[in-house]
Amino acid sequence: MDFGTIGGFALALATLLFLVLYEGDPMGFLNKHAGITILGGVVAATMIRFPLKEIATGLKAGLVYAFAHHRMHARELVVALGEIAEVYRRQGPLGLEAMEVEDEFLAAALRMVADGYDAEFIRMTLERERDLEAHRLEIGVKVYKSIGDGAPAFGMVGTLIGMVQMFMNMSDPSKLGPFMAIALLATLYGAVLANFICLPIAEKLEYYLGHDELSETMIIDGILAIKEGKSPSLVREMLQTYVPKPARVEVLEAA
Amino acid sequence: MDFGTIGGFALALATLLFLVLYEGDPMGFLNKHAGITILGGVVAATMIRFPLKEIATGLKAGLVYAFAHHRMHARELVVALGEIAEVYRRQGPLGLEAMEVEDEFLAAALRMVADGYDAEFIRMTLERERDLEAHRLEIGVKVYKSIGDGAPAFGMVGTLIGMVQMFMNMSDPSKLGPFMAIALLATLYGAVLANFICLPIAEKLEYYLGHDELSETMIIDGILAIKEGKSPSLVREMLQTYVPKPARVEVLEAA
Amino acid sequence: MDFGTIGGFALALATLLFLVLYEGDPMGFLNKHAGITILGGVVAATMIRFPLKEIATGLKAGLVYAFAHHRMHARELVVALGEIAEVYRRQGPLGLEAMEVEDEFLAAALRMVADGYDAEFIRMTLERERDLEAHRLEIGVKVYKSIGDGAPAFGMVGTLIGMVQMFMNMSDPSKLGPFMAIALLATLYGAVLANFICLPIAEKLEYYLGHDELSETMIIDGILAIKEGKSPSLVREMLQTYVPKPARVEVLEAA
Amino acid sequence: MDFGTIGGFALALATLLFLVLYEGDPMGFLNKHAGITILGGVVAATMIRFPLKEIATGLKAGLVYAFAHHRMHARELVVALGEIAEVYRRQGPLGLEAMEVEDEFLAAALRMVADGYDAEFIRMTLERERDLEAHRLEIGVKVYKSIGDGAPAFGMVGTLIGMVQMFMNMSDPSKLGPFMAIALLATLYGAVLANFICLPIAEKLEYYLGHDELSETMIIDGILAIKEGKSPSLVREMLQTYVPKPARVEVLEAA
Amino acid sequence: MDFGTIGGFALALATLLFLVLYEGDPMGFLNKHAGITILGGVVAATMIRFPLKEIATGLKAGLVYAFAHHRMHARELVVALGEIAEVYRRQGPLGLEAMEVEDEFLAAALRMVADGYDAEFIRMTLERERDLEAHRLEIGVKVYKSIGDGAPAFGMVGTLIGMVQMFMNMSDPSKLGPFMAIALLATLYGAVLANFICLPIAEKLEYYLGHDELSETMIIDGILAIKEGKSPSLVREMLQTYVPKPARVEVLEAA
Repeated sequence: MDFGTIGGFALALATLLFLVLYEGDPMGFLNKHAGITILGGVVAATMIRFPLKEIATGLKAGLVYAFAHHRMHARELVVALGEIAEVYRRQGPLGLEAMEVEDEFLAAALRMVADGYDAEFIRMTLERERDLEAHRLEIGVKVYKSIGDGAPAFGMVGTLIGMVQMFMNMSDPSKLGPFMAIALLATLYGAVLANFICLPIAEKLEYYLGHDELSETMIIDGILAIKEGKSPSLVREMLQTYVPKPARVEVLEAA
Repeated sequence: MDFGTIGGFALALATLLFLVLYEGDPMGFLNKHAGITILGGVVAATMIRFPLKEIATGLKAGLVYAFAHHRMHARELVVALGEIAEVYRRQGPLGLEAMEVEDEFLAAALRMVADGYDAEFIRMTLERERDLEAHRLEIGVKVYKSIGDGAPAFGMVGTLIGMVQMFMNMSDPSKLGPFMAIALLATLYGAVLANFICLPIAEKLEYYLGHDELSETMIIDGILAIKEGKSPSLVREMLQTYVPKPARVEVLEAA
Repeated sequence: MDFGTIGGFALALATLLFLVLYEGDPMGFLNKHAGITILGGVVAATMIRFPLKEIATGLKAGLVYAFAHHRMHARELVVALGEIAEVYRRQGPLGLEAMEVEDEFLAAALRMVADGYDAEFIRMTLERERDLEAHRLEIGVKVYKSIGDGAPAFGMVGTLIGMVQMFMNMSDPSKLGPFMAIALLATLYGAVLANFICLPIAEKLEYYLGHDELSETMIIDGILAIKEGKSPSLVREMLQTYVPKPARVEVLEAA
Repeated sequence: MDFGTIGGFALALATLLFLVLYEGDPMGFLNKHAGITILGGVVAATMIRFPLKEIATGLKAGLVYAFAHHRMHARELVVALGEIAEVYRRQGPLGLEAMEVEDEFLAAALRMVADGYDAEFIRMTLERERDLEAHRLEIGVKVYKSIGDGAPAFGMVGTLIGMVQMFMNMSDPSKLGPFMAIALLATLYGAVLANFICLPIAEKLEYYLGHDELSETMIIDGILAIKEGKSPSLVREMLQTYVPKPARVEVLEAA
Repeated sequence: MDFGTIGGFALALATLLFLVLYEGDPMGFLNKHAGITILGGVVAATMIRFPLKEIATGLKAGLVYAFAHHRMHARELVVALGEIAEVYRRQGPLGLEAMEVEDEFLAAALRMVADGYDAEFIRMTLERERDLEAHRLEIGVKVYKSIGDGAPAFGMVGTLIGMVQMFMNMSDPSKLGPFMAIALLATLYGAVLANFICLPIAEKLEYYLGHDELSETMIIDGILAIKEGKSPSLVREMLQTYVPKPARVEVLEAA
């Protein structure tokens, strides 16, 4: 579980509740018409913007990466690839077949080396796999961003509709309240949906896509160096640049 | 038919109707002057921005891709290219001439292989075809985006004109209503046209142009591998990376 | 003449006139102070932004391309280059000298082939010509865009000045009108100048610069294929990809 | 001197004076608090954004390029490089030593040829010189742009502070005036600083950096062609593409 | 210490204090609810946007680079690399082992030359080190920018909540004050946090990352030239282009 995401949402909820509960009726912040404006607008626009299948893929990717992403860290990858280099040196490609690794991409890379494909084919296939997978998940960034960018616009549509109704009923001042409520609450809902939920999830997904791309580049570099017969210590040193400096010494000691 | 697009527009309409019908006269939302401001402004600016022929091409491309795009999925392409590889292996280039494929780009690629052009010429011609076609249809993205970006600006022009007239007639308060209506309704019309219609269509067209470019890259890669005499199973495995992981196993079983 | 541009401006004018003439004094929309704010601001800022010579070049380029651009279409270029290929095949480089072509860039390319320069020099010179000419005219896009982006800002300056004066004269309500007029009209003038005139012209110029670049790339490709001695039919087929699909069949029939 | 910049600032001043002097007390537009908000905010933020040395370099570069840039035009460079080619052909590298050229970059290039460095080293050194110098002066674009983008934001900070004070003193209506004045004047000052001064200077500097880069590319191309022993007329013809078409014929006549 | 950053923050504080202390109760500018809106919103959104570890890394990087960055200047690097070249020429790779240099990156480069790695490996490793380190620190730019961009949005959320509460309590005018205060102060806090603190720090970090990248490129170029056996004076001359012109003569005299 990603405690940052969970804590972030908890804090967001606490902040909003605190503000809403302060002085006056919190129920006044719930408004059917404002909710329908934002929900209807966002769902409708998203359905037109992207194919339904991609919307599902994108929404799921955002949630999975925001709440439960657990890819190996660069430091762990240095350790893992160092071990693989040692197995490869002692037992050759056959030794790799028996190895079990958690990371799916690393496992695929191992299998290709064990199966004896040539280096150029391995690089090409793995790089294409890395790039196309990143490209496919990027739909999630686009979906969350388009909701985040669109929600305030639909808030404005709700605000305008509420204000027009208010001007049309100006003769009866007692009715101004509910119309003004739609007007302001639609904008508020849109701003909350965008700034507390969708734009942050889009950014976290984007962050992890970049992170995974780097990890996979590291795996490709490492696995090809191993296949070339580089010594485990050289592989470790070579991959060290991928590890942030403060974590680096530890790695070498651990190795 | 693209049910996402249709459902999206239906939901957008339902949302707007629900809001407009709520309390008060829905006819108050129809205003000739606000409509003329947006329509006149958008049409005039678009005519100046792009050549007339390109506007027609762009508007049509947006509608066709939003409502009726039905290009083969990557999964189907793997199957189709696998079959082509088998035919090519058994019957050589001549066997391809008899094949019938639905996809226009794939058909053109097949014809070039059947006609015996050399690999480099095929790659160059198909890549240019892919890039130039994408470039030509991108005018649709530009047209819809320019309308989507311009509509709120013309809404603001309408709003300003309405407000100036309101200030000029300030002595007669009973006239404030209609002027304020133009003011707000022009902005509302602009926001609806932009956020419910034009920007979503622009994004769907852009999405599919990217999707088609990828499919065509896949076809070029596959057809050249076939021409090189790669085995059907290798062609299938090579193209597998283009298929999203969840759909991938199925493909192999189907093959 | 470009009927799209002319029609667009006519429609823009009609729309504004219709709105302004509706109810009340259209003269109220003419305001010396608002006009001076926008005009003075835009002219001053543009003079600081770009050298005077470039402003003249840029403004002229925008008008020429918006109103009177008449470059050959891709389809016509295929026909023209096909004919050149036939002349070259029958009469060699000398035959080209006698040919007369309307397009300046194509004429320059022909002359270089006729003069017997080598292919690499021709490609380099023509590509540099193409790129530098596009670069030089891009100043027009920049000038119109900077006016289009700046005009609303100067409108806001006028609005702020008008509002400050209004607040300073608050004791005499009868004077509020004219100050508020400057305030709103300056913003209106800025929005009209930007959205009806400058931004659309900038986009049309940009569109045509991209279009010309493609045409010139096509001419370079075609002329070099001709110089290499490719057959007229192959030249035509090769250049076909530059022509939009619907127009393509026609071309082949014409040839 | 750059008459465009001077004329632009004069016109800006005249426009503002005209507006401010119209009806009412122009002194009302001078406000200590609004001035301090903008000045303090802009200076503080700029000091945090960039190192002090770079701020000085950047501000100076912007003023020098806006008011006193006088680099040779492409046309003059064709003439100058043509002459150098003639000297080189008659007297060899030694002849170049005696030549005096105004342009610093051209002088450096001449010296390197006279000193007999090889072509590859000359190209690499001059290109690095060109790129790094452009990179260093770009700090000016960044500084002016960051002031131009920040000024309206600090205007808004002033506006908000003024409005909060206004609401706190609501019981005494006679005090509303001065607070509202800070509110609006801070925004006005920010908009004027940004749109009349900083953003235009940033753009002129950026324009000239691009212009100088092109001139220096032209000098590198020309000087290397001369070193290769190309004839003066070929050098002139080759460099002609750098000259805008209308100015081109003149050049050839002059040559 | 970076006196620009410190002076900038001092000036920002002074400006705000001056404005707040002017006329009326400065305590009125402290508001618990506005503070909680901004703080809660910014912290929550940042926790969702980035992994906790990266937030810590990024915030620290921003502060370190804003307040205490002290990388060698290009001028000092020319001197240092000139000395290294002289040591290398007199004593060979062994002489470098005894050298002590302050800069970490330069020290790593020296060690690799002393250890006798080949030039291609040194270039590749150092370039990867440079690029990956820059990439890792860029998270700081992203974190500060996302706070700077988000703060005004959370200000708006606070403003909307305050205004809704105000409209709900409209019957009791004496309560309008505090609600309006949250409304305006939340926006003010957001604008101050963004424009005085986060966006400037983001820009300074970005500036120094670019600066360090250039210094490291210079070190790589210099160290490889030294390893190739270039003379100290040639190394100095070659690296001179990295030094701004005004500082350049001095360097040569110092050398």
